[in-house]
Amino acid sequence: MLLNKQEVDWRIGELGGWKIEEGKLKKIFKFKDFISAIEFVNAVAGLAEKENHHPDILITYNKVRITLWTHDVGGLSEKDFNLASKIEKGLIDL
Amino acid sequence: MLLNKQEVDWRIGELGGWKIEEGKLKKIFKFKDFISAIEFVNAVAGLAEKENHHPDILITYNKVRITLWTHDVGGLSEKDFNLASKIEKGLIDL
Repeated sequence: MLLNKQEVDWRIGELGGWKIEEGKLKKIFKFKDFISAIEFVNAVAGLAEKENHHPDILITYNKVRITLWTHDVGGLSEKDFNLASKIEKGLIDL
Repeated sequence: MLLNKQEVDWRIGELGGWKIEEGKLKKIFKFKDFISAIEFVNAVAGLAEKENHHPDILITYNKVRITLWTHDVGGLSEKDFNLASKIEKGLIDL
């Protein structure tokens, strides 16, 4: 289900460093090198498969941009914020 | 060293499905699913580390866009076409 603006604002406030751009939930993660960035991508890929929700992932050397939105509802849903939250928690284990 | 237009044209002709966009060498690879796309990204990452030349990599579910150029020369060099060629050869082993 599509979240309304108030719900999106509330959920964005719970995350750190994520922002909305062109209606999509985005964050750029920075690592010490390319290999560390790739490790992160693999961790995100594992979460994405588990949740059956797949973000766009852009790797630029040691930076990884994650872009989330829900195609089915044409905007942001719980799924996006749940996966963003899991990605943040997953970072602790890297 | 920066390649001239003639050299770029010649090398592009040797590859399959790569094109120049905004001065960069690009190709979109399509796979059967997200996990296959991630396997390809890991193979490309291994080649990139070995060659010490790192493309931008965009993953969109089962599609992977590879973007190559050489920052040091501000354009396309041998390094870009060598890595593109290795990526193509690597595909055979996936």
